[in-house]
Amino acid sequence: MKSAMKTTLFKRPPPPFFLVLYLFSTLISLSLSSSVYAQRGTGDLGLIIERKTGSVQVLETSNNTLLARIKGLGDLSHASIVYSRDERFAYVFGRDGQLTKIDMLEQKIAAQIKQSGNSIGGAISQDGRLVAVSNYVPGGVKVFDADTLTLVADIPATYGSNGKRSKVVGLVDVPGQKFAFSLWDAGEMWVADFSNPKKPKIQKFKNIGKNPYDALITPDGRYYIAGLFGEDGMAMLDLWHTEKGVKRILPNYGKGEKKLPVYKMPHLEGWTVAGNRAFVPAVGRHEVLVIDTTTWKETGRIKVHGQPIFVMARPDGRNVWVNFAHPNNDTLQIIDTETLKIIKELKPGKAVLHMEFEPRGEELWTSVRGEDRVDVYNTSTFERVKTLPATKPSGIFFTVRAHKVGL
Amino acid sequence: MKSAMKTTLFKRPPPPFFLVLYLFSTLISLSLSSSVYAQRGTGDLGLIIERKTGSVQVLETSNNTLLARIKGLGDLSHASIVYSRDERFAYVFGRDGQLTKIDMLEQKIAAQIKQSGNSIGGAISQDGRLVAVSNYVPGGVKVFDADTLTLVADIPATYGSNGKRSKVVGLVDVPGQKFAFSLWDAGEMWVADFSNPKKPKIQKFKNIGKNPYDALITPDGRYYIAGLFGEDGMAMLDLWHTEKGVKRILPNYGKGEKKLPVYKMPHLEGWTVAGNRAFVPAVGRHEVLVIDTTTWKETGRIKVHGQPIFVMARPDGRNVWVNFAHPNNDTLQIIDTETLKIIKELKPGKAVLHMEFEPRGEELWTSVRGEDRVDVYNTSTFERVKTLPATKPSGIFFTVRAHKVGL
Repeated sequence: MKSAMKTTLFKRPPPPFFLVLYLFSTLISLSLSSSVYAQRGTGDLGLIIERKTGSVQVLETSNNTLLARIKGLGDLSHASIVYSRDERFAYVFGRDGQLTKIDMLEQKIAAQIKQSGNSIGGAISQDGRLVAVSNYVPGGVKVFDADTLTLVADIPATYGSNGKRSKVVGLVDVPGQKFAFSLWDAGEMWVADFSNPKKPKIQKFKNIGKNPYDALITPDGRYYIAGLFGEDGMAMLDLWHTEKGVKRILPNYGKGEKKLPVYKMPHLEGWTVAGNRAFVPAVGRHEVLVIDTTTWKETGRIKVHGQPIFVMARPDGRNVWVNFAHPNNDTLQIIDTETLKIIKELKPGKAVLHMEFEPRGEELWTSVRGEDRVDVYNTSTFERVKTLPATKPSGIFFTVRAHKVGL
Repeated sequence: MKSAMKTTLFKRPPPPFFLVLYLFSTLISLSLSSSVYAQRGTGDLGLIIERKTGSVQVLETSNNTLLARIKGLGDLSHASIVYSRDERFAYVFGRDGQLTKIDMLEQKIAAQIKQSGNSIGGAISQDGRLVAVSNYVPGGVKVFDADTLTLVADIPATYGSNGKRSKVVGLVDVPGQKFAFSLWDAGEMWVADFSNPKKPKIQKFKNIGKNPYDALITPDGRYYIAGLFGEDGMAMLDLWHTEKGVKRILPNYGKGEKKLPVYKMPHLEGWTVAGNRAFVPAVGRHEVLVIDTTTWKETGRIKVHGQPIFVMARPDGRNVWVNFAHPNNDTLQIIDTETLKIIKELKPGKAVLHMEFEPRGEELWTSVRGEDRVDVYNTSTFERVKTLPATKPSGIFFTVRAHKVGL
């Protein structure tokens, strides 16, 4: 049989048209089969931001491997990411106003727009239909259709009597198809209800404090809290009771009267709420603060290795992991949330910038920018189980965020 | 050019070998392209159990549609489902000892085994590598490789001095690569550590109370609580402090001295922990109990329409939705968790069996078995936004469970 086929193949040259057809079909089959092999679930995917090269790497946490690199995302300083509700697409918010939609299954850019001159972060609506970006220049929030990235609404952050526009920070999604954000120049908080996306309703809260620089929303979506750069204390809005207005909490939270040298204002997204307590990076001090979230009062302080940047709870709330500002940024410390003691210290290497827990908490990924590496730790044994190459990695974001308020 | 090709095609009959090759390639291309069209994210998928026909339907929540029906799953009374960490595969635990692994992307059965004569529920390990099933006949827990469904460990629930085996109930995953379960006949709780899957370490707690019938684990994975059929009160194990042993809580929880007619013991998985409070179906009474989870004492009771079955919190914790036992099972009630008042009552139809919130809580799906329907409600407006056909639907399970302890 085999020799008969050989005979057919070589004895008589085939008509060129059929040969071309055959080759073409084979080519299509091959290219299709590569797509078929890429067919996979998306619940274990994530992205690593490579700031310097304007690229991201696609990762998966089931076998801890890197799947692809996607380039051309512009300036990714302070870039952040949210995910589509099906966990297939990522929205990358660049510093230069670029908004890029990435298809993680096809490992390519699905859509990209330059939506402003300068932007900082964004959010996806509760229903996953709207993507919002907070802009510095021109100051305001733009809201896009999550499918197509076409503009749905433009909210200039105009304040005062002369039509000035404020920089916008701390943009988060709020249950009930809303977004909350803060106005750096104006000292205001706004809540925009997009139940009717063509006609957003905006509620404004004025005089919340001087220069809100970042904000967070608690995991249940109830409390929106902004840090103030211009004074101590924080501004808090109870979103279940907006009629009560914005209140001041934690009067000593901030740079304080001594005006400590602050190497880096801590990220407020790094606030960790576990049960009744929030674990919070102090500003300028080598301390993690413990806050009772029923009273919003400080109940304890934990001495740590440096100025904390991210204070992140393992999903079961039993430990929190802390990284630090320069010059102490080669270290991670792990705190037991019952005893408030440091139970482990790790030295991953130069410039440990970001951490992300796998959804059920068994492993943690961390970016070690100065070593061009991403490391994976077992969170029970604290052993490093994997190390992977990345170019000046910073943020790490997993698709589980698609399912969570405020992430 | 076109006519030249035509000439080539029809003037001279092609050699049969190349024609076959061409057709074969085309066939492959077509079959591959159908797979390619099925490529999609898996974060918005779910399954509906159709008990009577031994089938499930695959659904997606982005557009609220049904994608496929998969048959041949055996007896699905009281069936439950867990998901693989990538949210592509579902493990369906049948009543007749069948364990079926479903590939939701290819919409087919990926693997199936009959692992016992009679089983009730199962769990997936923290790392997603192990699937455990709790069995009545023969009594015990079997643990399988999540990829292949090959047996990894067999734990007969042997108790007492004569080698009897107990029925096993209330099997859940526990952070730290553990499983916890309860022994109906023995009145024991066991915690099995699978850090080394070939050599599980088992910790046994005896005399926990008479006939534990079901159990739950709190969302943080800390407290494992079993309901007792044979006496009032519940048995609680603090998994952070197993050295303290099992304690009795809620001494009045149960059928009580009056021996009320209980139409259906409430599902303990339906316990809802929101902040510091648990909202719990009373047994036999038309009440939802409010429990302080810092003291595990009852702090309030809410009068409701019937004997509650599932009491489920919207992911933001602001409302809880309640369904009821026969003969009041045509109704849903919604409670405001601040005021503890019923703010809405819905009448979906005959036999409302199960509810599942979309991950960020904007919609809720409910199965109306008596009407062969699944309904989708907007959780802000309480309007029904979609209704879909299903054959005697019962449980509804979304892939977000992959990312959560105890689900």
